[in-house]
Amino acid sequence: MADHVLTLAEVAERLGGSLEGRGDIAVTGVSGLREAVAGELGYLTLPKYVSMLKNTAAVAVLVKSDFDRDAPCPIIRVEDPERAFTEVAGWFAAPLLVPEPGVHPSAIIAEDAQLGADVHVGPYAVIESGAVIGDRTAIMAHGWVGPGVRIGADCRFYPSTSVREHCEIGDRVIVHNGSVIGSDGFGYAVDEGGVRTKIPQIGKVIVADDVEIGANVAIDRARFGATRIGKGVKIDNLVMIAHNVQIKDHAVIVAQVGISGSCTIGKHAILAGQAGVAGHLEVGAGAIVGAQSGVTKDVQPGAYVIGFPAMPFDKASRAQAHTMRLPHYKSKLEELEARIHQLENGS
Amino acid sequence: MADHVLTLAEVAERLGGSLEGRGDIAVTGVSGLREAVAGELGYLTLPKYVSMLKNTAAVAVLVKSDFDRDAPCPIIRVEDPERAFTEVAGWFAAPLLVPEPGVHPSAIIAEDAQLGADVHVGPYAVIESGAVIGDRTAIMAHGWVGPGVRIGADCRFYPSTSVREHCEIGDRVIVHNGSVIGSDGFGYAVDEGGVRTKIPQIGKVIVADDVEIGANVAIDRARFGATRIGKGVKIDNLVMIAHNVQIKDHAVIVAQVGISGSCTIGKHAILAGQAGVAGHLEVGAGAIVGAQSGVTKDVQPGAYVIGFPAMPFDKASRAQAHTMRLPHYKSKLEELEARIHQLENGS
Amino acid sequence: MADHVLTLAEVAERLGGSLEGRGDIAVTGVSGLREAVAGELGYLTLPKYVSMLKNTAAVAVLVKSDFDRDAPCPIIRVEDPERAFTEVAGWFAAPLLVPEPGVHPSAIIAEDAQLGADVHVGPYAVIESGAVIGDRTAIMAHGWVGPGVRIGADCRFYPSTSVREHCEIGDRVIVHNGSVIGSDGFGYAVDEGGVRTKIPQIGKVIVADDVEIGANVAIDRARFGATRIGKGVKIDNLVMIAHNVQIKDHAVIVAQVGISGSCTIGKHAILAGQAGVAGHLEVGAGAIVGAQSGVTKDVQPGAYVIGFPAMPFDKASRAQAHTMRLPHYKSKLEELEARIHQLENGS
Repeated sequence: MADHVLTLAEVAERLGGSLEGRGDIAVTGVSGLREAVAGELGYLTLPKYVSMLKNTAAVAVLVKSDFDRDAPCPIIRVEDPERAFTEVAGWFAAPLLVPEPGVHPSAIIAEDAQLGADVHVGPYAVIESGAVIGDRTAIMAHGWVGPGVRIGADCRFYPSTSVREHCEIGDRVIVHNGSVIGSDGFGYAVDEGGVRTKIPQIGKVIVADDVEIGANVAIDRARFGATRIGKGVKIDNLVMIAHNVQIKDHAVIVAQVGISGSCTIGKHAILAGQAGVAGHLEVGAGAIVGAQSGVTKDVQPGAYVIGFPAMPFDKASRAQAHTMRLPHYKSKLEELEARIHQLENGS
Repeated sequence: MADHVLTLAEVAERLGGSLEGRGDIAVTGVSGLREAVAGELGYLTLPKYVSMLKNTAAVAVLVKSDFDRDAPCPIIRVEDPERAFTEVAGWFAAPLLVPEPGVHPSAIIAEDAQLGADVHVGPYAVIESGAVIGDRTAIMAHGWVGPGVRIGADCRFYPSTSVREHCEIGDRVIVHNGSVIGSDGFGYAVDEGGVRTKIPQIGKVIVADDVEIGANVAIDRARFGATRIGKGVKIDNLVMIAHNVQIKDHAVIVAQVGISGSCTIGKHAILAGQAGVAGHLEVGAGAIVGAQSGVTKDVQPGAYVIGFPAMPFDKASRAQAHTMRLPHYKSKLEELEARIHQLENGS
Repeated sequence: MADHVLTLAEVAERLGGSLEGRGDIAVTGVSGLREAVAGELGYLTLPKYVSMLKNTAAVAVLVKSDFDRDAPCPIIRVEDPERAFTEVAGWFAAPLLVPEPGVHPSAIIAEDAQLGADVHVGPYAVIESGAVIGDRTAIMAHGWVGPGVRIGADCRFYPSTSVREHCEIGDRVIVHNGSVIGSDGFGYAVDEGGVRTKIPQIGKVIVADDVEIGANVAIDRARFGATRIGKGVKIDNLVMIAHNVQIKDHAVIVAQVGISGSCTIGKHAILAGQAGVAGHLEVGAGAIVGAQSGVTKDVQPGAYVIGFPAMPFDKASRAQAHTMRLPHYKSKLEELEARIHQLENGS
């Protein structure tokens, strides 16, 4: 993080902020108030974290214009400390990877595949017959684009991703390393002896624009028709999306969530980490499913459900609170029984 | 899905079904009744879904021969609507990937590796020393087959799979993209200071015939001996199988399940999504472990367990139902106390 | 396992142990007492497993020097049966993979990348600009080392791993197939319409010495600064570690655990399988989080927590036990009500 050094005065000036304290101190990077080491700049937005100022080792802190507390170090007043912090962080960061336009000589591209303008195809990437790749899209090292796949413009596929045959990807989609789009759905016919025969999974996956898919995700193709990921959906690492699932626009699927076959996840719904949804269910628009929750029936639009089986937050919290008071209820029960016993014995 | 167009009369004729309604309407694909758009054919098997007919946009519906309800669209009577539907779906689907026999010139194959007849080895696949690949098996792009690995006939390894050294795979095994067979078990010796030293994991993985393994699965090799996956076992995406696990024939392991070291999973047992099994346990033949359940002791053959800790369904459901009634029990407790109080005061 | 055959007498001699029983019997491998088949040698350390001797098919059993029970087969007395067993297992195992020093001609290495002495770079591996690889480290087939990455000495990266730009890896680190180090953190700015814009993730991942990372793991880079994995940390398969997480030395993260952004996991803490930790929390040094538990607030050093929400083991177990007794409490409540009713009616 110490590739550049700026003075506090320079930082304040570049941000258009107002510095209080010495301007000649060197800033070498940024960090959270708790983790900051000497030379690093922190920021404070929420009043509830003001106590963290006391123990921070930050060289200075970005605060709101109307900040009215004491600080043990220089402060820089700005309109939006978090945004300013993000900007400063960018000054100190090593440059992120930007794939250059061009096809690496080791890439294998089928003769009938179509590449748009300024496409990047990395070393050892393979693009199969009939695939279409839009302008400025990057398929990085060891990527595999199956036959008949269509990928839009301005996408980035990090190394070692796979897109199985006939899947369709929109524009500005980001897919992180190791993710698989279009693997077979988990579908079998079972005979009377409990032996399973594979049902061909002849559908595909359709991913809309502006989707981001994390690392080592698996999205199964549909048994027929399409598994669909809507516009602007964000999917975190190690998520499992089964065949024929329909995720509507702008939903958020946090890490390690599993969504069973043929579920619908509504617009702007949020599934928190490690949650699961049983098959053929609908999670309504704007609903929130808590971390590790298990959805076993439809979730109403806008609802907030938690637990297993998932139920509305209030109901589940109340049951949980009562459960923790069970030792008390048990004692009360025993006390009442003793008092009844006394009454029965006329004493 | 609209690569072909057939008329309803043509669909009915090909299926040997009986059409009621106009025969000249175009069919362009298939879909579920709920998701169908204009031109798509649906199907109805179970009477409980009959109400879905009202609102479907399907162009026509496949129904059982003895169907006796009204439909808002043409129907085609067939013996088995689901089977007929699957058949029609196949007519409209783009062809699935079929790896052609042949070794891609970019594949790297050790001199002493043995390839059977009509094997497919895809671009940039690597087959190490002493590996043996059976007839008609496909190792697709970027696949890695470690030294001494034996793979049977008619297998398909999708792109970017890895099989570590000395593992053995049967016939007709399918492995989806990104899966790893034979990674080291998670075994360490711990010293008094809590520092861990790796215990060499010198066993292997043996996968029997007719197994299917989903995407981004990890199956660890045994500490010694073998982790074994039985005949016909089906494993979904993102599953974790630890060292020395023994999965018996025809068991089903749904997505994101985790099985700890040295467990035995019985024949035909089913582990539903995101379930976990603690180490050294036995899940009996034909047992079912519910989704997200945590198995902490042996499960009897044929049992159906749910929850954490996993217990028989009836017992767990009863406890769950009582838990939800705790607010009522608490009120009742307060009421009884008031009545006792009155009795005590002689009123 | 039967590549070699030794007699029992030879095994005893090599171990410096004392044989009781026939020495001319052939040993062809090793196994657990339960799974052993003819020819395999087992071992017994804990007295509680002594009953397993009765039914074992093991050809002989390694026991402690002071073993004083009957055995149905020959025994070899040794000081540490488990250690002796591990040693014997090594004699019978096929040799594990050891990557030879050397750069495969198909590897693509940027001109300004620096390779130490005796490095192994496997077929189709790609090492990008500015990367530095330490002595004797192996980057196996299909591995990808991003620009500016630094990897120490004596590391082993199994096939198909990825390390994103600028990440730093210590010495003697092992990374299993399919794992991803440095994928983007899951961070977005949300506008009033619920549409998310990506926040650049400009930090990196720093992995200390002696870490082992399982298969298909995802470790996200920091939003700024670094996600840090401390010295000697062991991470099992399919684990998710979010941006800015700090894992302190010698912690153990079991399979399928998910750790949310900005958490700190203390020294020697253990997170059991499928556990989850919500964002910005601290799990104290030496704490244990039970399998499938969901941590929703800070965990004290040395604490043992289970369940969702995770709470101290004793408290959670007590609540669990009371929950199972709810049917009994309900009956008791009804009984008391009847008795009160009788008292009220003066009978």
